[in-house]
Amino acid sequence: MAYAARVVIVGAGFGGLSAARALADAPVDVVIVDRRNHHLFQPLLYQVATAGLSPADIAAPIRSILSDQRNATVVMGEIAAVNTAERVVADTAGQRLPYDYLILATGARHAYFGHSEWETNAPGLKTIEDATAIRHRLLVAFERAEMSTDEEERQRLLTIVIVGGGPTGVEMAGAVAELARRALATDFRHIDPRQARIILVEAGPRILTTFPDDLSARAVYALENLGVDVRTEARVTESDADGVVVNGERIHAGTVIWGAGVQASPVAEWLGVPADRAGRVKVEGDFSVAGHPEIFVIGDAAQLTDAAGVAVPGVAPAAKQAGAYVARVIKAQLEQRRPPAAFRYRNWGNLATIGRRAAVADFGWMRISGPIAWWLWGFVHIFFLIGFRNRVAVMFNWLWSFLTYKRGARLITGSPQPREREAD
Amino acid sequence: MAYAARVVIVGAGFGGLSAARALADAPVDVVIVDRRNHHLFQPLLYQVATAGLSPADIAAPIRSILSDQRNATVVMGEIAAVNTAERVVADTAGQRLPYDYLILATGARHAYFGHSEWETNAPGLKTIEDATAIRHRLLVAFERAEMSTDEEERQRLLTIVIVGGGPTGVEMAGAVAELARRALATDFRHIDPRQARIILVEAGPRILTTFPDDLSARAVYALENLGVDVRTEARVTESDADGVVVNGERIHAGTVIWGAGVQASPVAEWLGVPADRAGRVKVEGDFSVAGHPEIFVIGDAAQLTDAAGVAVPGVAPAAKQAGAYVARVIKAQLEQRRPPAAFRYRNWGNLATIGRRAAVADFGWMRISGPIAWWLWGFVHIFFLIGFRNRVAVMFNWLWSFLTYKRGARLITGSPQPREREAD
Repeated sequence: MAYAARVVIVGAGFGGLSAARALADAPVDVVIVDRRNHHLFQPLLYQVATAGLSPADIAAPIRSILSDQRNATVVMGEIAAVNTAERVVADTAGQRLPYDYLILATGARHAYFGHSEWETNAPGLKTIEDATAIRHRLLVAFERAEMSTDEEERQRLLTIVIVGGGPTGVEMAGAVAELARRALATDFRHIDPRQARIILVEAGPRILTTFPDDLSARAVYALENLGVDVRTEARVTESDADGVVVNGERIHAGTVIWGAGVQASPVAEWLGVPADRAGRVKVEGDFSVAGHPEIFVIGDAAQLTDAAGVAVPGVAPAAKQAGAYVARVIKAQLEQRRPPAAFRYRNWGNLATIGRRAAVADFGWMRISGPIAWWLWGFVHIFFLIGFRNRVAVMFNWLWSFLTYKRGARLITGSPQPREREAD
Repeated sequence: MAYAARVVIVGAGFGGLSAARALADAPVDVVIVDRRNHHLFQPLLYQVATAGLSPADIAAPIRSILSDQRNATVVMGEIAAVNTAERVVADTAGQRLPYDYLILATGARHAYFGHSEWETNAPGLKTIEDATAIRHRLLVAFERAEMSTDEEERQRLLTIVIVGGGPTGVEMAGAVAELARRALATDFRHIDPRQARIILVEAGPRILTTFPDDLSARAVYALENLGVDVRTEARVTESDADGVVVNGERIHAGTVIWGAGVQASPVAEWLGVPADRAGRVKVEGDFSVAGHPEIFVIGDAAQLTDAAGVAVPGVAPAAKQAGAYVARVIKAQLEQRRPPAAFRYRNWGNLATIGRRAAVADFGWMRISGPIAWWLWGFVHIFFLIGFRNRVAVMFNWLWSFLTYKRGARLITGSPQPREREAD
């Protein structure tokens, strides 16, 4: 069958995959490029970092997901440049992918506010390697504390600082607290892991700023219940191997985890268009790039205020909606129909979990917290996981942890430094 | 409670753990040292390397396993030296562990017959990092083949050589064949993974030499059924980035996996005693080292012909039996009873599996092959896995793969080079 057009999608996250799937019935040749071979369910990545889940539980091969989609081809590669004049994408291996339509859905990383050297000691959490590197550091810190004969050093090793009071930081802090207080509680002889100090540091006036005030307060209460020291209006001014400096106070810490700030992938550079402070491309109402109706930027790399005046947030549901919307735009053009109505973000609700049986949920018309929100959080995440195997594996691991208080993936493997895919 | 003696066990593999557990009721202080935080169920490691299982499915934290054993302390550390005069073990961090009894159960790695430089291109399979590095190489080879436009290079990438016709090599070859022929079969657009060439190379006259002739022949038949090219009397004389040279013939291969030879860990060096060609220490009938009744070497690092004249093999059941036996020797000494009868290895049978529904089993009095042997193999491995969680996780993954022909852990993560634990 001859295709009317070739659509190249860069990035197989929530946005890219959603666009690819929505184009399954279109007369187009879909090529989806990712430097990874797997789609990652990032919302549960913190559970890999805290030894609750295995990487394979929250990842699925992109090829497998699109195996039955006849018009889709998967390419594992890393984008080096986009030639908008010739309409060709080039990857780092020198491969050239011509396109009629281009969808850039390459996401974002954490931002170190100009201090990229902090990443060495305060890794962020975006990839599987990030997660296993953080797991390595956390577990090794307890091992070293057990062996240390120096009380100060032991204190330092048992101090864990999490920077950033957004959902990542809050969920991470809750999971680390339960790791120390439950899963590891009785396994050591010289230290009591329950004595670990867990500090959540947020520069703004409150945590979970995308939630209403009362749910923020609930989250603080739930975290403090788990023994987490929550500090707001607290700014990190220094980060090194010994820990961090927060509001002028040095906190000696064995593990620092970074969950603050957002820095979009270099889409603006590839296209030669301006970017906002977070590196995002300001897109038109249909996610196209000004002057390039054939190029779309969606997900965390795009900045858009939708038709209803709502700033589209950098969350998975927004990326998915954008992917499906752009597919509709492309189909309308190919069929020479009029374009779909301007994009409006549909906010189905915000959820964040804080350890065992605590969570907050905001649906606009309803706010809940506590065990019911926690169960809801669990169902929603299982429901959106891709693939039957992942669903059952995650459910089993959760059930097991819930009943035994243990963690199923307490492995110290690999390196404490995440490494990007090798160049070779 | 005051302990009568302090027993230091180095290595938490099958031998070391078995000794530690058997000393649970003895009036001794047990210290078990391992450079890893986890016990690894090595017989299933090839399934991690071929994307069927996750690392956490076949590993369990040593601390967790011994959490309830009051007289046991777990130390994560790497041994640098043994001072037999002062009866102290020193680790690489400078920590000193005094002992009254010392059990060395540090195992073995693969041997490259004097060509340690081959390891870079032909990694062995002993640790979780080894397994994920091999998984990385295998999956990346298919990805590169899909993208290659050069037919020769594509052929090379789709050629996988497995060196060594022992159980590791045979099980690996079967699993790689099924990965290519089943799990990946329909996921690519430009290559047909079923065309992959899988070559098993054995220097001796037949594969599975520890099995009777007829079962070796059955294994060859089962492998050839899966499309594996089995070559005996085939010696590797060269290994590099392009592949291997076997009996003078260059085989261009994208992936080479090493499963030949055994090199014991440097126990003999630590003790300053002679070693055999494989680096093993020749021990007395009770696994003690000549002149040192307080030091025992068990498992793959020991060489012993037992009281019945049987050479104790380097397999998990033998290591477990040795661990339990040495614990009895120590208890007898402490209670001033006469020592247990000289060690005799009890061979409960040999099992090896070749892909889906094929396996060989040798119980001496009975030999079986085919589906019944395969089911038996599955039950035995599930039974011996440590921990309820691991059992259920492995059973679930097997069931899922069995029904869907898919693999649950098809992730390209980390690096293609296994890395030992960092020195820091």
